[in-house]
Amino acid sequence: MTAVITLTTDFGLADAYVAAMKGVILGINLDARLVDISHTIKPQSIAQAAFVLRTAYKFFPRRTIHLIVVDPGVGIERKAVILRTPEVDFVAPDNGVLSYIIDEYAGGNAVAGRQPLDTARAQAIEITNRRYWLSDVSATFHGRDIFAPVAAHLSLGTPLAEFGDAIPSLAVLPALKPRLEPDGTLTGCVLHIDNFGNLITNIRKPDLPPDTTGITVEVKSRLINGLAKTYAESDGLCALIGSSGHLEVALKNGNAAAYINAEVDDQVKIRSNEE
Amino acid sequence: MTAVITLTTDFGLADAYVAAMKGVILGINLDARLVDISHTIKPQSIAQAAFVLRTAYKFFPRRTIHLIVVDPGVGIERKAVILRTPEVDFVAPDNGVLSYIIDEYAGGNAVAGRQPLDTARAQAIEITNRRYWLSDVSATFHGRDIFAPVAAHLSLGTPLAEFGDAIPSLAVLPALKPRLEPDGTLTGCVLHIDNFGNLITNIRKPDLPPDTTGITVEVKSRLINGLAKTYAESDGLCALIGSSGHLEVALKNGNAAAYINAEVDDQVKIRSNEE
Amino acid sequence: MTAVITLTTDFGLADAYVAAMKGVILGINLDARLVDISHTIKPQSIAQAAFVLRTAYKFFPRRTIHLIVVDPGVGIERKAVILRTPEVDFVAPDNGVLSYIIDEYAGGNAVAGRQPLDTARAQAIEITNRRYWLSDVSATFHGRDIFAPVAAHLSLGTPLAEFGDAIPSLAVLPALKPRLEPDGTLTGCVLHIDNFGNLITNIRKPDLPPDTTGITVEVKSRLINGLAKTYAESDGLCALIGSSGHLEVALKNGNAAAYINAEVDDQVKIRSNEE
Repeated sequence: MTAVITLTTDFGLADAYVAAMKGVILGINLDARLVDISHTIKPQSIAQAAFVLRTAYKFFPRRTIHLIVVDPGVGIERKAVILRTPEVDFVAPDNGVLSYIIDEYAGGNAVAGRQPLDTARAQAIEITNRRYWLSDVSATFHGRDIFAPVAAHLSLGTPLAEFGDAIPSLAVLPALKPRLEPDGTLTGCVLHIDNFGNLITNIRKPDLPPDTTGITVEVKSRLINGLAKTYAESDGLCALIGSSGHLEVALKNGNAAAYINAEVDDQVKIRSNEE
Repeated sequence: MTAVITLTTDFGLADAYVAAMKGVILGINLDARLVDISHTIKPQSIAQAAFVLRTAYKFFPRRTIHLIVVDPGVGIERKAVILRTPEVDFVAPDNGVLSYIIDEYAGGNAVAGRQPLDTARAQAIEITNRRYWLSDVSATFHGRDIFAPVAAHLSLGTPLAEFGDAIPSLAVLPALKPRLEPDGTLTGCVLHIDNFGNLITNIRKPDLPPDTTGITVEVKSRLINGLAKTYAESDGLCALIGSSGHLEVALKNGNAAAYINAEVDDQVKIRSNEE
Repeated sequence: MTAVITLTTDFGLADAYVAAMKGVILGINLDARLVDISHTIKPQSIAQAAFVLRTAYKFFPRRTIHLIVVDPGVGIERKAVILRTPEVDFVAPDNGVLSYIIDEYAGGNAVAGRQPLDTARAQAIEITNRRYWLSDVSATFHGRDIFAPVAAHLSLGTPLAEFGDAIPSLAVLPALKPRLEPDGTLTGCVLHIDNFGNLITNIRKPDLPPDTTGITVEVKSRLINGLAKTYAESDGLCALIGSSGHLEVALKNGNAAAYINAEVDDQVKIRSNEE
């Protein structure tokens, strides 16, 4: 049965882990169309995976199944879940990797912790029925042994209720939104570094004061005053709202991440100089 | 409708840009067979993309659609085009990325600038009909919003004339061929660095004097005398005509690019020592 | 005809070599499902390719065709072969890259050199019939010109005997198993470095003394005493039996390979301190 299944992991490109997952899927549904979103998510960076997933998923056909395995809690506390929306399905650990999707279905108001689902708009199932798993489940590779076969069976049209019972809420990351400190500082982080070395943060336009001329962006002890409109505007480091709607730090004709030695998860602070 | 679509970009492997393009294509033609040629083209290196495309495209089935998005002029001057030959289709910006293909159809005589097409052998169309684009077109990502949907509609058999009007010529890179200086020096550049660190240049055998024993190859201030026949012949750096027919600089049992710190676009000079 | 073909090479991701192989396959069987296992095998590391292949192949559907091109002997002495087992086919150079597969069919007793095949369980063919090759065969790229078209014809159901004559034995690597020195030291090597920087060796649990508390593991002049049970157990470098059943050297919350500057093929020594 023809269906699209995407894969997003932190497994890298050197090992055969992604290939093993694809083998399992094709063994169950040989007509699945497999598309890689990214496998170079920083190991265990749930926030980066959540961001990368969000930039891609809307461009896939209706009823695409998105499989995400960035799973630091494998074998311990977190649940494995399916989230079904009117358009698509997600198969993932319940660790916040679906935060941006859940936030969209919560009208942009999801709060850190656990977000209740409006079941008229989205349903979630905890994956518990071992009938759809590989017969041997390792302690460390649920991507291959649980998530991949569940996604494959889902692509064959197996009803959602077959995989387990409904759950009323899903995990939402604290890192989804920046934190407002008592002194007025807005503290966020680097979500993703793109191929050009731009630092994409979890700070979005509505998080900033209406007049951004007076703000200072601090990252890796560097200070940037005000926001630029385009990458080409100013020499040196600049900050701007990028095409994803997030605040980015960029370097004209250069690689900002390499220049200031920044990494995913680094802190970013915004101060308003209004005194 | 089964059809092969290849993708060549400078988007790298960390972001979801390539995945978004694939999602758009599969939303239009779920039976497209998607094959990556390379996504690690040096950002904005049109000449490298042109070279890499040429080494691969002939091995694909007839009527394969090759989609190339190395597009420094996105949103500004360059046209988006389809080039149809008797065997294959190319969907790309008209910025020189098809130079080697055009050169083949011009009998190896294409000159830098704009090359008129012999329409008995190849036709080109400017992509202007918005009916085949995504409804929202961003200023910075025509790969996803224009090129990908056009390639997908082409794979469904949509006639060429539907996409726009014929144009009589296409852009050809100056970097396609080396330049002969007044003093007899031949000045070329590094087109591509392969997985083994070999520097592949835009200089081909017919560009060199018949007797190559007296030539000197200069790259990154290093001088190499004469051409070797194989990689194993000499210790240290050597120059030879590689399997692509281009002059390469290699290091026996080593990585020439790392050894001399060379990059794509670095200059390469050939001098004949005949005095 | 729908069939899965996997690809494992040392071609890297920068060049179009893998794409050319895929183009050739799709030109012969447009319904082949192509899956990459890894293309970042260390150039010419047959032992690493053999290990990576083994960790993935069992998870693919029955009758999958695994194509492996890590081929330092291309154009010289080694044969090109097909190995057919009751479950799957392998198309590869006969240079040891199938060592672990052959060892499984030999009950774990394959010895370095050439292993005779029990033809009731596995058959091997030398690829000699040029009818199934590309018409022009280069001296340096049999992956594209011989292995890829043979795998594609195999996926169409062409009988094994069409490709060439049966051969009674296949090459097995010396590196498959560690060497016991006269002084009691066990000398092995690093087979693979995974995405987390763990060093996976060719030493397996049965190669070690029953009581591992008294052993010392030496790699890159570092000494590690005894085996840990999990990665989290001890600070600094530790050695443990990983999920593949092989001895691994790891660094808690870090990258062991970067920390001690280790590479694939580096030597690993085990000594028992029983005096």
